[in-house]
Amino acid sequence: MDIAILLYQGVTALDAIGPYEVLASMPEANVQFVAKEPGVITTHAGVPGLHANMAFADMPAPDIFLLPGGPDVSQVANDAETIAWIQQAHKTSKYSTSVCTGALILGAAGILDGLSATTHWMFHDALKDFGAIPTLQRVVREGKVFTAAGVSSGIDMALTLAAAEYGDDIAQEIQLIIEYDPEPPFNAGSPAKAPKHVIDSLQQKFAHLAP
Amino acid sequence: MDIAILLYQGVTALDAIGPYEVLASMPEANVQFVAKEPGVITTHAGVPGLHANMAFADMPAPDIFLLPGGPDVSQVANDAETIAWIQQAHKTSKYSTSVCTGALILGAAGILDGLSATTHWMFHDALKDFGAIPTLQRVVREGKVFTAAGVSSGIDMALTLAAAEYGDDIAQEIQLIIEYDPEPPFNAGSPAKAPKHVIDSLQQKFAHLAP
Repeated sequence: MDIAILLYQGVTALDAIGPYEVLASMPEANVQFVAKEPGVITTHAGVPGLHANMAFADMPAPDIFLLPGGPDVSQVANDAETIAWIQQAHKTSKYSTSVCTGALILGAAGILDGLSATTHWMFHDALKDFGAIPTLQRVVREGKVFTAAGVSSGIDMALTLAAAEYGDDIAQEIQLIIEYDPEPPFNAGSPAKAPKHVIDSLQQKFAHLAP
Repeated sequence: MDIAILLYQGVTALDAIGPYEVLASMPEANVQFVAKEPGVITTHAGVPGLHANMAFADMPAPDIFLLPGGPDVSQVANDAETIAWIQQAHKTSKYSTSVCTGALILGAAGILDGLSATTHWMFHDALKDFGAIPTLQRVVREGKVFTAAGVSSGIDMALTLAAAEYGDDIAQEIQLIIEYDPEPPFNAGSPAKAPKHVIDSLQQKFAHLAP
């Protein structure tokens, strides 16, 4: 099972590594980090902590591809070479997936037209630009297209995919090996649950990124 | 706030990147990936997907250090140079932390002697080798020493630390920006909850790593 996770400068690290940990635990998984320009990848926080080891040509037809997001994906979503690789990969993929604003890259490749999809809660409206139907769920499946909500939701999406492909037992084994029994210290993980002043403060800080 | 995340060959990626995403979102966080030999880091699954940009000498006195785990940490836990860096860092740190079997490295450095601590559920007994008291909690705090259970629990630990240092509002903002409102598709994230045949199958697969 060839699995390509796209990396690019400014990516949000957990968008990629959350699902990576799950997907790499699937039977016979061959996970690779693919980039237009392989090498050291600096995350959106400015830390050179990731590394892409393959170019697009090294994995033109992955069984699964995953597009992680970042606070500003406009450059990668408008890059012709990146979009061409995604469109080509989508033709033969078993699963085409995104996490967070990675959905906007999937959308830019024309893959979300007419489909229900999700993305980071701050960016839901932007999905409409690509003909998608914004859907407030943590994981949305439309046939072989899986989209996940913000950042950490990629873990839930990847477990859902593992169950779809390998069955519930394997998915539960993976959940258990990564001890994914979450106990967030607060109940503030979505705008429906977080205190209003927390949401307001965050939206003020990120107003410059609003779609 | 200088934050050092230790990397080494064979590390479990999510152990490091889960808390990274939270810690890097704290105010004025300066997070760096530190290794004995900086450069590309291959995860335990054999994928060269991480990158350490600093050597021990570049960050001898971080305010926070974090030790991620991996299926086999014996080499790093027995490396004199690594242990010396940890012991030195612990003298002046505000927080000394581990995720998963990173606790066994913390233990090898003598930091868990007499303390309650947690680690990946498969390795709890090994904590006793270092004088620690194995504690079945997802996050254990003993003064400035925070230990987290397996792999994904580093996210919960880092949010707990963010709240301790910056207060509940900031921690909730971080939880909301990473949309950490987990919805695992199964209730199998701990041995207390997973079906017995799932636990048995996993333990068989990892029997060679048993402490």
